[in-house]
Amino acid sequence: MYYIGIDLGGTNIAAGIVEEKGKIICKKSIPTLAYRPTDEIVADMAKLIGMLIEKGGISTSEIKSIGIGCPGTIDIENGVVIYSNNIPMKHYPMAEKLCEWTGLQVYIDNDANCAALGEYAVYGEGVSSFMLITLGTGVGGGLILNGSIYHGFNGAAAEPGHMTIVSGGEECSCGKRGCWEAYASATALIKLTKEAMKKNPQSLMNKIAAENDRVTGKTVFDAVLENDGAAKAVLSNYIRYLSDGIVNVENMLQPEIIAIGGGVSHAGETLFAPVREYVRKYGFNKYLKKAKIVSAKLGNDAGIVGAALLNL
Amino acid sequence: MYYIGIDLGGTNIAAGIVEEKGKIICKKSIPTLAYRPTDEIVADMAKLIGMLIEKGGISTSEIKSIGIGCPGTIDIENGVVIYSNNIPMKHYPMAEKLCEWTGLQVYIDNDANCAALGEYAVYGEGVSSFMLITLGTGVGGGLILNGSIYHGFNGAAAEPGHMTIVSGGEECSCGKRGCWEAYASATALIKLTKEAMKKNPQSLMNKIAAENDRVTGKTVFDAVLENDGAAKAVLSNYIRYLSDGIVNVENMLQPEIIAIGGGVSHAGETLFAPVREYVRKYGFNKYLKKAKIVSAKLGNDAGIVGAALLNL
Repeated sequence: MYYIGIDLGGTNIAAGIVEEKGKIICKKSIPTLAYRPTDEIVADMAKLIGMLIEKGGISTSEIKSIGIGCPGTIDIENGVVIYSNNIPMKHYPMAEKLCEWTGLQVYIDNDANCAALGEYAVYGEGVSSFMLITLGTGVGGGLILNGSIYHGFNGAAAEPGHMTIVSGGEECSCGKRGCWEAYASATALIKLTKEAMKKNPQSLMNKIAAENDRVTGKTVFDAVLENDGAAKAVLSNYIRYLSDGIVNVENMLQPEIIAIGGGVSHAGETLFAPVREYVRKYGFNKYLKKAKIVSAKLGNDAGIVGAALLNL
Repeated sequence: MYYIGIDLGGTNIAAGIVEEKGKIICKKSIPTLAYRPTDEIVADMAKLIGMLIEKGGISTSEIKSIGIGCPGTIDIENGVVIYSNNIPMKHYPMAEKLCEWTGLQVYIDNDANCAALGEYAVYGEGVSSFMLITLGTGVGGGLILNGSIYHGFNGAAAEPGHMTIVSGGEECSCGKRGCWEAYASATALIKLTKEAMKKNPQSLMNKIAAENDRVTGKTVFDAVLENDGAAKAVLSNYIRYLSDGIVNVENMLQPEIIAIGGGVSHAGETLFAPVREYVRKYGFNKYLKKAKIVSAKLGNDAGIVGAALLNL
């Protein structure tokens, strides 16, 4: 049997046919056009599934279920999107609607939770506890305990980006101050980079940004590799903020594996080596095994894989 | 059947005979005298159990097992204390030693985990997720998921006191900076109180502390009830630090109940009302049910009850 996984994003709807162990055999994406009526988006999701089935050369009877990873607050039991900002929805019965179009059972969960389940599938059932942290526009995450997404009693668990790490600090889009997201996201790294560029006009960061026509999360890493002092200071600051949050996750949950994904994670060992050192030094657990801190493996496919596996 | 619960503290060894649902039918405590050889402490634990059985008027055959709540890092599978600071131990096979003395099966877990399990027993199996946070000399905690202590993959989970809430802030005894414990413990509250007393010699806090011959965690609350301005400022600061950590727990885990224990929790609604307001306002979850934030119910008995229930 196969499973359809849909990663419903603000820009694109990406979908794939996935095998039981998480391998994508075929995928396709179309634009979301988020600001049209949600019923139209769902109709397009159904069309996309039709195209996928044709492309994959399988029959509908070989598909066990559909899973959707959706941004926002989800009532997973009833398949309802309680609230989503990126794709404007309020109390929208998405599972029921897509089931009407396809005749297949539809599962739905938060997109970050699905990405975590997808990344977890890389490791398989031997791993008792797994946390995915994504460093992108914001800081997202998902927690997998004993093979299942941990939701908390109300479905809203695993929002590591909104842990306070600087009480009273930078304002966050959530209305609180000092959230990890405001210090460890790609957005925050770009902000730190821009501030340092202004203060250090001679820094290589300015040259690199000019060559690329913009400042990205990569700018500082490129300059660090060229031994730029101002860039090293930015990175050192960022590493502390990032690692403080990872230590928080570890001290609270001691997951066996902490996977870091999102754009910033592509910096590789320039990022991971100092993070691991900081966490080893400052994690509260001094006498027992430590979490493995690894780079996420699936990139943008994680959401598709995890959504497909919601039924397992 | 009955269960023996032992709360092994740095000052006293407290033990009780506990029924299946967590009711203590009889208890007793003796001094730990922590700096003697651990074998002697265990021999005294065995004697204490003998005294308890006599006091309770039951026979050894009615006891199903013994549980020990012990400070430090515990290998729960093998019943070994890997490391403890308060009662100096390293790789000490405590379960085996006490089993030799008593002939009964012995379970052991971290003392804060046991306290959490004890407090959880007040609510029973209907509660899927429960977090105890204790505000004492430090900030401790324990997490109960689906009726069992959550240990993480290595046994060291649930150390909320060592979450960073002020990156780069106050030094903590764990070696890291900015830990929640350094801002939300009774110790931290006393420090904040003393600083404010020095800056505000006219504050009622000075009078109250002089009357009691010392500054305690209660000093500031007593002065707030008399409408003292400097005390209100101290409490407002403390509430923010405390609540920031509680929001962190909520945003990560969304437990159904968050129970707050330890000395500071005795301040009652003067503490709880503003904490609940802050958490309601700043918690990330805006559209779903919220955790109940309650005062812990069992006081010093929580550790005995939870240790006894380790076997259930």
